[in-house]
Amino acid sequence: MKKYVVGIDLGGTNIKVGIIENGARILNKISAPTGNYKNKKALIDGLAMICLRLVDSSGLNKDDISGIGIGAPGLIDSSRGVIHELVNIKGFKEVPLKRLIEDRTDIPTFLDNDVNVMTLGELYHGAGRGAVNMLCVTLGTGVGGGVVINGKLYRGSSLSAGEIGHMPLNEKGPACGCGGSGCMEKSVGNNYIIRVARESIQAGNKSLITKLVSNNLGKITPEIISAAAKKGDRLAISLWREIGAHLGVTLAGAVNLLNPDMIVIGGGVADAGRVLFDSIRRTVRQRAMKVPARRAKIVKAKLGQDAGLIGAAVLVELNT
Amino acid sequence: MKKYVVGIDLGGTNIKVGIIENGARILNKISAPTGNYKNKKALIDGLAMICLRLVDSSGLNKDDISGIGIGAPGLIDSSRGVIHELVNIKGFKEVPLKRLIEDRTDIPTFLDNDVNVMTLGELYHGAGRGAVNMLCVTLGTGVGGGVVINGKLYRGSSLSAGEIGHMPLNEKGPACGCGGSGCMEKSVGNNYIIRVARESIQAGNKSLITKLVSNNLGKITPEIISAAAKKGDRLAISLWREIGAHLGVTLAGAVNLLNPDMIVIGGGVADAGRVLFDSIRRTVRQRAMKVPARRAKIVKAKLGQDAGLIGAAVLVELNT
Repeated sequence: MKKYVVGIDLGGTNIKVGIIENGARILNKISAPTGNYKNKKALIDGLAMICLRLVDSSGLNKDDISGIGIGAPGLIDSSRGVIHELVNIKGFKEVPLKRLIEDRTDIPTFLDNDVNVMTLGELYHGAGRGAVNMLCVTLGTGVGGGVVINGKLYRGSSLSAGEIGHMPLNEKGPACGCGGSGCMEKSVGNNYIIRVARESIQAGNKSLITKLVSNNLGKITPEIISAAAKKGDRLAISLWREIGAHLGVTLAGAVNLLNPDMIVIGGGVADAGRVLFDSIRRTVRQRAMKVPARRAKIVKAKLGQDAGLIGAAVLVELNT
Repeated sequence: MKKYVVGIDLGGTNIKVGIIENGARILNKISAPTGNYKNKKALIDGLAMICLRLVDSSGLNKDDISGIGIGAPGLIDSSRGVIHELVNIKGFKEVPLKRLIEDRTDIPTFLDNDVNVMTLGELYHGAGRGAVNMLCVTLGTGVGGGVVINGKLYRGSSLSAGEIGHMPLNEKGPACGCGGSGCMEKSVGNNYIIRVARESIQAGNKSLITKLVSNNLGKITPEIISAAAKKGDRLAISLWREIGAHLGVTLAGAVNLLNPDMIVIGGGVADAGRVLFDSIRRTVRQRAMKVPARRAKIVKAKLGQDAGLIGAAVLVELNT
C-alpha cells in the first residue's frame, strides 16, 4: 500500500504543497508565491515540478505516492478534473488540470474547489469528525461553503453546491459580485467588516483599533479587529456580534432546510473566536426551529492553514 | 407479491384514504371530515376502521395489502413511526401511531410528515420523476418543503429537514409562528396573500376580486385571486408576481446552497399558474448564481389532491 499523498493548496496568493502520510500527518511542506508564475503554462509546469521535487527531497519516490490532490479557488468539475474558471488566478478557463499534471508527473491527480477540499479535511481529520450531515463555512473576502450529506461530500447536480455565502440575507440587499443581491457575503465578508470598522471610527467612535493601525484606518484588517476585541474594545466586540448575527440568520435558514448535526466554521475571520461564535450560536438558537437548532453543533474549524493540504490528501484517498 | 397499498392523507380538515395499485393507480378512495372524530382515540380507531372497510369494499382482503402509509401534518419520527406533535389536529403528542394502527389492522404501517410524503409522490410518480437532487415546496397557509438528495428523500439529522418556508427572507422581518422572524412563509403564505389583496382593495385600488367576493373582502381566497388574475385583473397579477419574487429569492438561496436539478412547487397557491411560475423562474434566474440557476428546472407539482395518497403508497413500497 502506498501511504503518502501529495496535497496542493492552490491559492490566489500562495501555492502550498505538502507530503501527507496516513491521511493527516504532514511530513513535509513548502510554499511559493502564486505570482512567481507568469502565466498558466508556467504555473502548471511549476506545480508538477514542485510535487516531484518535494517527493524527492522527502526521501521518497513516485512509487510511494498514491496520488496528487489539488484544491483550487473557483468553479471546478471534480468528476473530470477540469477547472472551468478560477477566482484570483488569471488565465485558467476550461483547463484540464488533472490530465496536465498527470502528463507531467505520471501520478494520478484529483481536484476540487478549495472549500470542498477544506470540508473533506475537517470532516475526516478536523472538527467535523463523526458528523453525518454537516455544513462547512469559510469566512474571508468571500464566504464559501461545503455540504456533507450522509457522511459524504455533496456536490450538487452541476457540482456547484455549497455557496452559502450567496444565500440572500435580505431580499432587497446590495448587489453582489455573483450577480445576485443581498447575499450573506455582503454582510459578513472581510470588505464589509473592514468598512464598518473604519466608518464607525470615522464617525467619531473611540476604539483601540485606531491605535493598533497607528491612525492609518486603511490598514484595518479582521485580524486587528480581533486583537482589539480580545482586549475588550467595545467597538470591535460589537462589530463581531453584528457579524455573528448576520451569519447566524443565514445559518438558521440552512439549519431549517437541512437539519445538519454539525456546522464547522473556518477561515481567517473565524479567528475572532468566542465573541463571534457566541453570537452565531445565540442567533441560530433564536432564529432556527427548535428541533433542528438543538441538533446543530456549531464549532470552529480545527485544521487552520493546513486544511487545504489535508483535505487534498482526503480527496486522493477517496478516489484511489 | 402483494400489489395493493393503503394510503392515508391525514389532514387538519379531511382524512383521505385510498387503495393504491402498482404504485400510482388509485383504485378506490374515500374521505371523511377530521372533525367527525371527537378525540385522539376515536380518530385512531376511525383510521383503522376506514382502512379495513375500504379494503373490504374494494373486493380485497388484508393479505392483498403490503402496508398502510400515512402522511400527517407535523413533527414525525418516521424511523420509529411516532408522531411528536401535529399541526391543526389536537391531542396528538408523542403518539406511536405506527404501532397503534398495526395493533388494530395487523397490516405493516409507516408514517411521515405530509410534505415528505408529497415529495415522495412527486419524485416517483409526479413532476419530479427522474430528478436526482430535488426540492419540493408546498404553498398554502404554511409553506412546507421536502429535500431529495441523490434520488432519495433526505430527512436530516433529527428528521426535521425541509423547512424551506422558515428560511429567512429578511434579516429583520416580522415574527413568525415558528419562533424565528422574517421567514419566507410570512411573505408567501395564504394569510399574507389574502391580507395584501384586501388591504390593496381597501386602499382604493380597483380589482375584479371585489366583484368575485360580492364586496365581502373577508371572503378573499388565493383561489379567487387566481381566478381574477386569469381574467387579466391587474391587482391580482401584480400580487402573484410579488409572491413569485419573494419565493424566488428564497429559492435562489436554496439553489446556490444545494444546486438541485429540479424544484417542484405544489399546494393550493401553485394553482395561480403561469403568472406565478414566470415570476419565480425570472427571480431565480436573476438572483441565483448562473451555473446552478441554469440547472434547476422549476415545475408545477402534478399529483394535486392525490399527492398525499400516492406518496403514502411510495412510503410503504420503500419500506417493504
